[in-house]
Amino acid sequence: MRKQRSVKDSYVRMTELVLPNDTNTLNNLMGGKMMHWMDIVSAIAAQKHSNRIVVTASVDNVSFKESIKLGNVITLEAQVTRAFSSSMEVHINVWSEDIPSGTKVKSNEAFFTFVAVDQSGNPIDVPEAIPESEEEIKLYEGALRRRQLRLILAGRMKPHDANELKSIFDLDN
Amino acid sequence: MRKQRSVKDSYVRMTELVLPNDTNTLNNLMGGKMMHWMDIVSAIAAQKHSNRIVVTASVDNVSFKESIKLGNVITLEAQVTRAFSSSMEVHINVWSEDIPSGTKVKSNEAFFTFVAVDQSGNPIDVPEAIPESEEEIKLYEGALRRRQLRLILAGRMKPHDANELKSIFDLDN
Amino acid sequence: MRKQRSVKDSYVRMTELVLPNDTNTLNNLMGGKMMHWMDIVSAIAAQKHSNRIVVTASVDNVSFKESIKLGNVITLEAQVTRAFSSSMEVHINVWSEDIPSGTKVKSNEAFFTFVAVDQSGNPIDVPEAIPESEEEIKLYEGALRRRQLRLILAGRMKPHDANELKSIFDLDN
Amino acid sequence: MRKQRSVKDSYVRMTELVLPNDTNTLNNLMGGKMMHWMDIVSAIAAQKHSNRIVVTASVDNVSFKESIKLGNVITLEAQVTRAFSSSMEVHINVWSEDIPSGTKVKSNEAFFTFVAVDQSGNPIDVPEAIPESEEEIKLYEGALRRRQLRLILAGRMKPHDANELKSIFDLDN
Amino acid sequence: MRKQRSVKDSYVRMTELVLPNDTNTLNNLMGGKMMHWMDIVSAIAAQKHSNRIVVTASVDNVSFKESIKLGNVITLEAQVTRAFSSSMEVHINVWSEDIPSGTKVKSNEAFFTFVAVDQSGNPIDVPEAIPESEEEIKLYEGALRRRQLRLILAGRMKPHDANELKSIFDLDN
Amino acid sequence: MRKQRSVKDSYVRMTELVLPNDTNTLNNLMGGKMMHWMDIVSAIAAQKHSNRIVVTASVDNVSFKESIKLGNVITLEAQVTRAFSSSMEVHINVWSEDIPSGTKVKSNEAFFTFVAVDQSGNPIDVPEAIPESEEEIKLYEGALRRRQLRLILAGRMKPHDANELKSIFDLDN
Repeated sequence: MRKQRSVKDSYVRMTELVLPNDTNTLNNLMGGKMMHWMDIVSAIAAQKHSNRIVVTASVDNVSFKESIKLGNVITLEAQVTRAFSSSMEVHINVWSEDIPSGTKVKSNEAFFTFVAVDQSGNPIDVPEAIPESEEEIKLYEGALRRRQLRLILAGRMKPHDANELKSIFDLDN
Repeated sequence: MRKQRSVKDSYVRMTELVLPNDTNTLNNLMGGKMMHWMDIVSAIAAQKHSNRIVVTASVDNVSFKESIKLGNVITLEAQVTRAFSSSMEVHINVWSEDIPSGTKVKSNEAFFTFVAVDQSGNPIDVPEAIPESEEEIKLYEGALRRRQLRLILAGRMKPHDANELKSIFDLDN
Repeated sequence: MRKQRSVKDSYVRMTELVLPNDTNTLNNLMGGKMMHWMDIVSAIAAQKHSNRIVVTASVDNVSFKESIKLGNVITLEAQVTRAFSSSMEVHINVWSEDIPSGTKVKSNEAFFTFVAVDQSGNPIDVPEAIPESEEEIKLYEGALRRRQLRLILAGRMKPHDANELKSIFDLDN
Repeated sequence: MRKQRSVKDSYVRMTELVLPNDTNTLNNLMGGKMMHWMDIVSAIAAQKHSNRIVVTASVDNVSFKESIKLGNVITLEAQVTRAFSSSMEVHINVWSEDIPSGTKVKSNEAFFTFVAVDQSGNPIDVPEAIPESEEEIKLYEGALRRRQLRLILAGRMKPHDANELKSIFDLDN
Repeated sequence: MRKQRSVKDSYVRMTELVLPNDTNTLNNLMGGKMMHWMDIVSAIAAQKHSNRIVVTASVDNVSFKESIKLGNVITLEAQVTRAFSSSMEVHINVWSEDIPSGTKVKSNEAFFTFVAVDQSGNPIDVPEAIPESEEEIKLYEGALRRRQLRLILAGRMKPHDANELKSIFDLDN
Repeated sequence: MRKQRSVKDSYVRMTELVLPNDTNTLNNLMGGKMMHWMDIVSAIAAQKHSNRIVVTASVDNVSFKESIKLGNVITLEAQVTRAFSSSMEVHINVWSEDIPSGTKVKSNEAFFTFVAVDQSGNPIDVPEAIPESEEEIKLYEGALRRRQLRLILAGRMKPHDANELKSIFDLDN
């Protein structure tokens, strides 16, 4: 039987300081640097779940609503939501904190997917991911729908085969 | 009348070498570094179209199919596909080249969206983007559909209002 | 009356991945890189306690027992232990995790001291730091003794005036 | 008989420019970056003395008195003070220079300890370090006392066994 | 017979953004960073021509006429001009673009020379480089003269043996 | 009368460690990184001579004879050779040391030229540079010849006007 592991065992928190080289000429954090941090924190979560080296398989839509300033403290939290044979979906929340004013806002949310590989780089199975809290169960259930959207967008699934996804487009109504 | 500018004027090509710090312990390029490069090349394309400072507004789904090795030469090409008042969608193609073997493969394709801002960081209108070649026209037309998907995924549009998007899900069949 | 703040409000956790450029030719993390991370995580803790920009005032003895390998995941936890007018002592614990083998060891422990400054760089008072747990109270009480050792080592206090410190050397026995 | 080597053969001088990413939002050099440079310059001194790869074993108390500005030229000088079987203590002096005003101040002084290792990472004996000048002899003699303090602070020596150290606390007077 | 390859097959274009750490305290790009980029782009051109790892053999005189500002977009174009057994000369043109004002100026021009090496680091022959356009032929012909100047400056050729070079100094008039 | 300053007051020594990201896939230092270090050390020498911010004006031919390995210790020494109104020529010597084998070889020699500028970036006069030792006098005298070659190569002087330079080509014999 496949090994099981609680999703909360994969939880990782990372804190970063926005430095001059991370910003554009308006002193705002560049989106690419944020993506870079998201990739590292979520790769570590997937590594903790699988005890394997992992490679990024896909990044879901990310939107940037808040501008983040030089000197801000960035907190990134990542946790595996669900595992599918050798792949794992990781959910990431990002907060940005302006220390002098004491304000902290949620700036981003994202889903990254990783594949666990062995020393030769071949995919290898990972433990099942077991959600426990209400929030974890909700993310676990949504993972199937997000996976179908990923496969369609990568041209590897036909839209009319995406049963899970249909619900959000009210396809049968 | 709004200024017009040919999309091909925004074309940017960037070349990068995969260095040790860009790789994981299997000597494969980390996904986050690739996203970082994609953000820089596409931000430059959006800057060239608008002659403005730009900020990343969103990143569409990106999938990573090929593993890219230490020492590979990465070529990124970016071009604006369409402009919407202050925002611009940019299309990015990425190739990875292994010099000793002379093999070159297309490794990624992505869409990033940017907003042009003035010196105070407020959104400001950009020129209309005029497609010319067949490929450019196809990307221009698809931009509306991708934009609706972005708005739905960001929770800012209801799926049943996404007329353009419905077509890919064969909603009316 | 001076403002008070619970020490646990300053808690920060930071996670880092050991990359090639952080290591020596045996693939071990260099001590200076670890000190750099310790400084960042503890500066953020001091900033959270004081809502001020902070500058490093001193670093206490740090010893490196474990060698840390390329690819390891480093977790640093920092929390203010005590505040003295404009300065704050921060306690840092560091763990190193080897993902494939699933082993995690405590690799370092350190005390950094920071001074809060205003926009002109002049020292400015910070809230009192209130310990609550048994561990926090123990660290709070030890802070006085460590401070005397720091002042002696910096040549700013005569050893025989260090009443708190005398106890560890059993000076009166 | 153990090989001998003059301490001055290990002398290293390093010069660095304070760049934007090395500074906080007040444009002052961050303490962690300074520790990083100190580690590199002193590791090179220990390598020159031992002709071996070395690993950082401990860092003694460092205090930061002067704030160092963006654009300053930093000069670090390191020299082995004494060797103990496989370990070496290195003394570091740091100066900060503001070029336009032509002012140069001593900003830091520190002691780092390194262990020489063979290709498998095991400790290996190093040559004896022979002091010559008055200053070198003074540093050589103080090394024993600093070593006892290090062992006590690391919990590896009982304070009442620290005969050398007792003198600075006037324990027998 | 020696393999032949069109010089234009080695063409590489690289785009870089001037970031804070690349600039001095007047916010101008430092010359050393520009040389670093020139080396990378021209090494890639030489790698493309030879399908080999290459090492920098020499850099010809480079002059810096324009000051380049923080935030500017730098475009570097490199192409092999001529090959000599295992070495290749590469010509580099650099443009600097100020996006908000829409101005683009040619800022530098340079010649770097590389040697192709095998896996043990020994020089190995490369294909002949065939120029086609008028500009390429001119660069191809000048390569001999520049090579003699390089050999003289490196003390490996006597000035009176430099037949090609003599022409620019009107030696026989 | 113009201020005078001994050339030896501008002497700077810098030490660097070759890290993974500085090397190509054969673990050899990339030439561009070396040029970057040369630019920093020589800019500091020119700053010390002039007490001004300086900008790189030109780099003379540099040849790379020795391959430098990962982990090597690089020592760069720079000193102003001669000043011309607002510009200064700096001579740089580079040594590469392999610590385990204890071998140290001279790997490069170069001349960089800098212009001193005021806060608005305009050229400003610098003190005269006074050579003292035999070696310094030889470098001082050669500076005129190297300057003519630079002007010719930059197309700003006609070869037959380069009286100083003619001697090395035995033009009148």
